[in-house]
Amino acid sequence: MSKSYRVAILGATGAVGTELLELLASRNFPIADLKLLASERSAGKTLNFKGENLVIESVSDRSFENVDIVLASAGGGTSKTWASVAVEKGAVVIDNSSAFRMNPDVPLIVPEVNPEAAATHKGIIANPNCTTILMTLAVWPLHQVKPVKRIIAATYQSASGAGAKAMEEVKIQTAAILQGQQPVAEVLPYPLAFNLFPHNSPLTDVGYCEEELKMVNETRKIFGDQDIRITATCVRVPVLRAHSEAINLEFETPFNPDEARAILSNAPGVKLVEDWQRNYFPMPIDASGKDEVLVGRIRQDISHACGLELWLCGDQIRKGAALNAVQIAELLVEKNLLK
Amino acid sequence: MSKSYRVAILGATGAVGTELLELLASRNFPIADLKLLASERSAGKTLNFKGENLVIESVSDRSFENVDIVLASAGGGTSKTWASVAVEKGAVVIDNSSAFRMNPDVPLIVPEVNPEAAATHKGIIANPNCTTILMTLAVWPLHQVKPVKRIIAATYQSASGAGAKAMEEVKIQTAAILQGQQPVAEVLPYPLAFNLFPHNSPLTDVGYCEEELKMVNETRKIFGDQDIRITATCVRVPVLRAHSEAINLEFETPFNPDEARAILSNAPGVKLVEDWQRNYFPMPIDASGKDEVLVGRIRQDISHACGLELWLCGDQIRKGAALNAVQIAELLVEKNLLK
Repeated sequence: MSKSYRVAILGATGAVGTELLELLASRNFPIADLKLLASERSAGKTLNFKGENLVIESVSDRSFENVDIVLASAGGGTSKTWASVAVEKGAVVIDNSSAFRMNPDVPLIVPEVNPEAAATHKGIIANPNCTTILMTLAVWPLHQVKPVKRIIAATYQSASGAGAKAMEEVKIQTAAILQGQQPVAEVLPYPLAFNLFPHNSPLTDVGYCEEELKMVNETRKIFGDQDIRITATCVRVPVLRAHSEAINLEFETPFNPDEARAILSNAPGVKLVEDWQRNYFPMPIDASGKDEVLVGRIRQDISHACGLELWLCGDQIRKGAALNAVQIAELLVEKNLLK
Repeated sequence: MSKSYRVAILGATGAVGTELLELLASRNFPIADLKLLASERSAGKTLNFKGENLVIESVSDRSFENVDIVLASAGGGTSKTWASVAVEKGAVVIDNSSAFRMNPDVPLIVPEVNPEAAATHKGIIANPNCTTILMTLAVWPLHQVKPVKRIIAATYQSASGAGAKAMEEVKIQTAAILQGQQPVAEVLPYPLAFNLFPHNSPLTDVGYCEEELKMVNETRKIFGDQDIRITATCVRVPVLRAHSEAINLEFETPFNPDEARAILSNAPGVKLVEDWQRNYFPMPIDASGKDEVLVGRIRQDISHACGLELWLCGDQIRKGAALNAVQIAELLVEKNLLK
């Protein structure tokens, strides 16, 4: 009989939390015991897991006793408060927040890209930011063949990146506008319905918002290459669930688009989607609910001899968050890296 | 008494046509006679101009007799059919379609950028594509100070670029989705509500769609500089009326963002919109109905020592089409360039 594990989900009621629950079930993760943790507000509510109603517990010091794996998805503050407690009690924490991502003692992992980093963990493993995960899946297989020197990204990020409440807000705003009323913005800073705006994460003193610097810094850490030059413009768009990215890549020498196509058609976690006859390429509605990041529209950059361009869409909640975390848990099991 | 002119609008009932009518009135263009031309389908209908109901006429050979200026906005096919007829009868045609833009005998004009090109006209002047007009307004003032070497653009284009019917379709699709129904796409190839997709103009054999190559080729022609290297990824987003663009610029030497800011704060047709404290930058809802292109989020590109990035939004129907055409007409009057 193969081993099974005691798992806790911290932040079980959020958009990512409920997806984690669904994925642990559908992927048949070997679970001996599943604990759902959330804030006091949600305690006592139940969520269904494989036909069983599990009662959500309010998180406390004792929550992490007899737990092997914590899947944390309740924001940076909550992770900072509880991750060390969980590690002390013997659990390995897979953290979906940005709290530990750039900590040199914490591996930052996309299982298709740098699974080997898991072996160095000291109790916490960080799940990268959604836009980073999606981009690395498409760029890493090319980088293996010919090192990428520079990345210029522009994103088209859905409301789901700001959580379930933001998705609901966009729907309410949209209905209001269709009825001739003014949209009200409470979750996001500006109305997103029939509108868009540069990503609302805090701005830093280099003129980039935190979301953009995550793409820069996390990609370098995951690739183990501090020399890649990266810039990103991150934009929120009135899409509900999947993120899109326009990616411009520069190499030392030309990268044949057909070669790139062949590489990406066999890349793990990637699905090549391009029908040049029909002008059909990845779209958020096709990426929603899918495990793979959809990549296409691969072409020679006409402005740079060593440039290559591509377009991708990926489910931000799934591979951009929950699925990647569950894959990290599966990796820990497979490589016997749990305590 | 100053001179006034006999004007015809070809394609008076479209999204751009109705905007042309509004602008000729609000800008008090010196009109002696105004003729509204459209297809047979719209003939007999009326449109209001300065309190008067004008009857739309079906376009024919005789429509262009005794006309000084034709503002054409009825698609490339209609322009190809009628422009030479109008020129033969003595009119100057300002054409909003792509039919003549790259014709070496036809000046392609953004009045704030290359007004001097108007003097070379032989009867037809082309109005550039919307995305090109918006980009050139922001980039030209910088290019004057330090020549730009490369432009990497990603666009976020509203439904209005595909006409009034596309705007209506997005609203209907959105209402359907909010009611749990499937969206139906008839005007655009795929549902745009809560979705987005690479621009649906025909793909060319270099892997770029026509919309993208317009940004490349038209910008070079307007700037009179065939050496600028340009790439663009054009994307349709579920916004109703204004286009946005993420622009990455490369120069020979570094371009100080504060210098760029000072230049753009005094540039014609440009309004600098950036509040770094509030994380407030140009948004489509703020650009809609405005004459200026809103430009902001100007910053040093952290991936390139000589790189500069900016973000812009502009009303695609207004400055991206109708306003630019009316400004060209005003330029012809001012410079006495009518026949």
